[in-house]
Amino acid sequence: MSSALLHGYFRSSTAFRVRIALNLKGIAFDQRFRHLRKGEQRAPDYLSLNPQGLVPTLEIDGHILTQSLAILEYLEETYPTPALLPSHALERARVRSLAYMVACEIHPLNNLRVLQDLSRRFGANDGAAADWFRHWTKETFGALEQRLAQEPQTGRFCHGDEPGFADLVLVPQIINNLRFQVDMSPYPTIERIGKACLELDAFAAALPERQPDAE
Amino acid sequence: MSSALLHGYFRSSTAFRVRIALNLKGIAFDQRFRHLRKGEQRAPDYLSLNPQGLVPTLEIDGHILTQSLAILEYLEETYPTPALLPSHALERARVRSLAYMVACEIHPLNNLRVLQDLSRRFGANDGAAADWFRHWTKETFGALEQRLAQEPQTGRFCHGDEPGFADLVLVPQIINNLRFQVDMSPYPTIERIGKACLELDAFAAALPERQPDAE
Repeated sequence: MSSALLHGYFRSSTAFRVRIALNLKGIAFDQRFRHLRKGEQRAPDYLSLNPQGLVPTLEIDGHILTQSLAILEYLEETYPTPALLPSHALERARVRSLAYMVACEIHPLNNLRVLQDLSRRFGANDGAAADWFRHWTKETFGALEQRLAQEPQTGRFCHGDEPGFADLVLVPQIINNLRFQVDMSPYPTIERIGKACLELDAFAAALPERQPDAE
Repeated sequence: MSSALLHGYFRSSTAFRVRIALNLKGIAFDQRFRHLRKGEQRAPDYLSLNPQGLVPTLEIDGHILTQSLAILEYLEETYPTPALLPSHALERARVRSLAYMVACEIHPLNNLRVLQDLSRRFGANDGAAADWFRHWTKETFGALEQRLAQEPQTGRFCHGDEPGFADLVLVPQIINNLRFQVDMSPYPTIERIGKACLELDAFAAALPERQPDAE
């Protein structure tokens, strides 16, 4: 079994996604933590691995990989079992589209560096930043709930009865929502799927509060 | 050759990506336009295709596909020639990571609905919205330029001498930058690649100003 080194931060949703994927695939990994609030992701030694100065970076198989969604696809292609994407192109498109609803429409707007910028640029206080966070979450979660509740491919998890890409992007968002008091009552299907995921060790062991750098 | 129907908007970067991919793969397609500034993407008939009320939506092979990055992967899997991703997992990860730098770190922060929200929420005028746009573009373009200039896999295009996923995500961003007067002089490699892309009909025919709904 390969071993890997994940550079992350306990609270980073994108590092959380990769931890879940590594756990689901049974890939042993160590972690190194870059404290985002202290700016450790901008240290020269880290920028040489990841010129964007963002987490995560995954060192695996002698390679240095960046961008969590690209890392997930790499893991799926090189460690195919258990599969985290279905085998049929149409089903793969469904799973990816669910994952990208969160990864491309919610998370980029709601991560720490954006909230910090709103404060600097517009004087947004904690309450205004939380309103922003909740707005973009709700904007997508309404449609996501509708899709998951209505589309027949939804099972115990986002797609069928095995966890996959959509689940491992969704769960970090659900956990993030707790910190910003997002009312989850309009999203019972999302809630149910999140609970089913967190019953699995692969998800639970990846939770922020279970990481050594948790505060 | 299959025919397809793309629901988009001339100025949408994400619809632009899909137009380029369809052109590169030689898939004939018609377009229907949803005027984003008039809110046509929230009309009930469109929401039944795309519950998020976002463009693009692609109808192809009897299926309805949403989320541009999921559409690109579907096209690559079902219309494999010409390939828009390399064949080796490590190279695929490189191309995807370059594409996602733009798709996940710039575009989600800079699209129309976010700029409109900044105005409503923080009273951001056009100048402040443009500053925001330029900030997030520069934040990523610095690292993207560094990677493209230094990594040996860069060729005439982002990866080698054939256009692919990273190019078709990058070019719409470059075109968008024009409207917000982003100074491109720090990014000569990005500029060079953008020019090489636009020499190809597949890219040029997909330009916003070449669409029937262009204003």
